[in-house]
Amino acid sequence: MKWLPGERNNGFDVLYHNMKHGHLSTKELADFIRERATIEEAYSRSMTKLAKSASNYTQLGTFAPVWDVFKTSTEKLASCHLDLVRRLQELIKEVHKYGDEQIKAYKKTKEEVSGTLEAVQNIQSITQALQKSKENYNAKCLEQERLKKEGATPREIDKATVKSKKATDTYKLYVEKYAAVKSDFEQKMTETAQKFQDIEETHLLHMKEIIESFSNTIKDIHLQIGEVHEEFINNMANTTVESLIQKFAESKGTGKERP
Amino acid sequence: MKWLPGERNNGFDVLYHNMKHGHLSTKELADFIRERATIEEAYSRSMTKLAKSASNYTQLGTFAPVWDVFKTSTEKLASCHLDLVRRLQELIKEVHKYGDEQIKAYKKTKEEVSGTLEAVQNIQSITQALQKSKENYNAKCLEQERLKKEGATPREIDKATVKSKKATDTYKLYVEKYAAVKSDFEQKMTETAQKFQDIEETHLLHMKEIIESFSNTIKDIHLQIGEVHEEFINNMANTTVESLIQKFAESKGTGKERP
Repeated sequence: MKWLPGERNNGFDVLYHNMKHGHLSTKELADFIRERATIEEAYSRSMTKLAKSASNYTQLGTFAPVWDVFKTSTEKLASCHLDLVRRLQELIKEVHKYGDEQIKAYKKTKEEVSGTLEAVQNIQSITQALQKSKENYNAKCLEQERLKKEGATPREIDKATVKSKKATDTYKLYVEKYAAVKSDFEQKMTETAQKFQDIEETHLLHMKEIIESFSNTIKDIHLQIGEVHEEFINNMANTTVESLIQKFAESKGTGKERP
Repeated sequence: MKWLPGERNNGFDVLYHNMKHGHLSTKELADFIRERATIEEAYSRSMTKLAKSASNYTQLGTFAPVWDVFKTSTEKLASCHLDLVRRLQELIKEVHKYGDEQIKAYKKTKEEVSGTLEAVQNIQSITQALQKSKENYNAKCLEQERLKKEGATPREIDKATVKSKKATDTYKLYVEKYAAVKSDFEQKMTETAQKFQDIEETHLLHMKEIIESFSNTIKDIHLQIGEVHEEFINNMANTTVESLIQKFAESKGTGKERP
């Protein structure tokens, strides 16, 4: 589809402000990613604390070696989330860089569309003048008719005819002016609408690229976390009851030989 | 392998205390799971807050509908982690229930092994007495020899012979007593060591079951989170630049018809 200026000639304003909203969205996307990074950082820190708890549990008894498995796995989870934080921070930098480029591009566009803004203001003032001259023309024609009907003096009728003629000329002039300006306005507005649409499409494509980068990062880390879980399950399976009983007997000298 | 009591007859103490450490491990495992649940709860709460941020971002401009995709996905992530919290809390209840059963079983075992504790104390005191009577026997024999060599009176030698005879009898008595008690001790201790080992193996199996339940829960939620990520990626792919441009044009009346 194509964007075209709106019915009440306010299309320019709508499209121009939308360009500014584009920059606001970029800022908000950076905010969103930053907030997510902050959440992941807090999670990672808590996991590191949890790993420390696991290593502070009792080193006595047969179960003690199991805490090492918990500790290692929990540390790895903490590290995955910290990795996510680092990658999100890199992404935030990219978003800010894009936001800065956006501002520059928007300033340039503002200059480029200044001619269109003039054409908009032009057609708006001529539309007003045209309306006024049309009303004046109608009034003067009615006045001339009334005088004729009521049998006014020829002098009065002549005077009204001159006024009516003048109003007709003014009206015709504005009709021609409007036609000329309208063509200029339409051409410029169509070009500018296309320019705004191009800017908007480029902006949305860029935003979608950033979001894709965000999703890919999240997906990568999710896979890493899955591997940590698998490793934990395998390590637990390898920590057999038999091996724990044996380890304990070896450490305590309790076993093997009769007293 | 089999657990057998240690060399210095302290095997009983080591094994008996290990049974107590078993209960401590159960308490610590509950603590670990609780700390993890607390972390997940905080994470879930932060995600809910992040979802709210997404819905508070500007509703102006072409990008606005994208925030709904972020909001929905972030809410679902919050809900996955809250689900994890609920399931971990259920698991903690099970661990506590097991801990209570463990205490009861340990009290029962304490009564059952009281005979072995007596046998341990018995052999320890008889070992001491045997050692003492052996030393006394050696001393009395040497005294008898010394008097003979130094040419003491027959009365003195007779007196020493009586003492030496008495010490020999006492020593022999303790050697016999020790032999009798040792056999009782060995039998009881072997039985008790087996009982402690059975308790320990059952305990470790139970702990491993709890950990398996923990891993399965974490794995389930990890899969759910993966689905939320996939859904986010699909929803973003469906939110095309074209559709965003069209939605905006429709909402603003900017487009389709010429001015």
